[in-house]
Amino acid sequence: MNLGIVTGTLVASRKEPLLEGLPMLVVRQLDERGAEKGGYVVAVDSVGAGVGEVVLYASGSSARQTAITKDKPCDAVIMAIVDQWDIDGETVFVK
Amino acid sequence: MNLGIVTGTLVASRKEPLLEGLPMLVVRQLDERGAEKGGYVVAVDSVGAGVGEVVLYASGSSARQTAITKDKPCDAVIMAIVDQWDIDGETVFVK
Amino acid sequence: MNLGIVTGTLVASRKEPLLEGLPMLVVRQLDERGAEKGGYVVAVDSVGAGVGEVVLYASGSSARQTAITKDKPCDAVIMAIVDQWDIDGETVFVK
Amino acid sequence: MNLGIVTGTLVASRKEPLLEGLPMLVVRQLDERGAEKGGYVVAVDSVGAGVGEVVLYASGSSARQTAITKDKPCDAVIMAIVDQWDIDGETVFVK
Amino acid sequence: MNLGIVTGTLVASRKEPLLEGLPMLVVRQLDERGAEKGGYVVAVDSVGAGVGEVVLYASGSSARQTAITKDKPCDAVIMAIVDQWDIDGETVFVK
Repeated sequence: MNLGIVTGTLVASRKEPLLEGLPMLVVRQLDERGAEKGGYVVAVDSVGAGVGEVVLYASGSSARQTAITKDKPCDAVIMAIVDQWDIDGETVFVK
Repeated sequence: MNLGIVTGTLVASRKEPLLEGLPMLVVRQLDERGAEKGGYVVAVDSVGAGVGEVVLYASGSSARQTAITKDKPCDAVIMAIVDQWDIDGETVFVK
Repeated sequence: MNLGIVTGTLVASRKEPLLEGLPMLVVRQLDERGAEKGGYVVAVDSVGAGVGEVVLYASGSSARQTAITKDKPCDAVIMAIVDQWDIDGETVFVK
Repeated sequence: MNLGIVTGTLVASRKEPLLEGLPMLVVRQLDERGAEKGGYVVAVDSVGAGVGEVVLYASGSSARQTAITKDKPCDAVIMAIVDQWDIDGETVFVK
Repeated sequence: MNLGIVTGTLVASRKEPLLEGLPMLVVRQLDERGAEKGGYVVAVDSVGAGVGEVVLYASGSSARQTAITKDKPCDAVIMAIVDQWDIDGETVFVK
């Protein structure tokens, strides 16, 4: 899984029917220290994350292992909102 | 999923029989701000996208989760045409 | 899928029995304009491609969705020989 | 699989229910010589690894092939704690 | 698949029980010309490769399609020992 920060929302009215109703968010990738890495991913949100929240997302076939993404053409899913992470005995982030 | 713009079309008469009839488009990758990233992918189009349209595509096994790509040797599928996306409270793109 | 040009052949007599008889080709990756990108992949050929031909290949689990690669330890397959592709209204390649 | 060193821990109270109780660790990627590569991954720990330990992790769908990650939205798992590795006849690391 | 040269061995006594008895080798990635690319992967060996041998390895879910890796948390497998490969009509490598 990778860390990211939700930076935006996306609207797509014409889409594969299986994606109907799935919230899609833009997630900017964060490095281990919480700095932005320069990349992004559009992910389905399975946990009710909002813009500005630090999240954990899964990619590939693992992104289809949540209740709302099962058997859907989705390759990235936000599966946790991060409360805190620590690196080398130091707290990098607290919600 | 990633954002892209459809830039071209591809014709291949000799191919795996399972791919018969599937429209294949060239998609240039876009970054979070809508700028071209320099990469591309050839994707099966499941939503009737045309050249010049901004789309969302899925990769890997998730690309086989649409009606037309099921069980086919396809690793990228356009599964939505993007209407709008917003980043940091600002509209980046409107169709 | 990605575009490539077949540049070589590979012989491996000691291999996983499931791979017996599968033709393996070296494919140099091409960018959207047909220029070489610097990377390569060794792919199983499911369409009878020859050295010098421009092809489309699929990666990952999708590479196991052809008749000859099903359930085999193969992560890249040539599934089409390209006849033509056009970018931005311009023909980049014609066979 | 890739080599990494466990550098941190992560707490996420709001998450996909399937992830409940799974320990998630931050793993810094190591190169073949044991030097840090600059990347990281958040992985589920299936072997009881601790901060500072050198581990082996698997990515993608293979990360769901352990007892605790089966059918879960997890794309990286620590599946071994490394005792020793040797490169070019030289011991690079001993626990 | 990708080309690599086996450069080392790895010992891990504490691991996911499913990995018990699987030989794990360090494989340095080779480019199309046989030069080292700078990357590596730790792969399960399904063909009895030794240090110094040039091999072909498969990644991702395809790495679980050999007899010894089936349903195991393994994302890279050596599935062939290379005898020879030719590029642009020239022999790059002969065992």
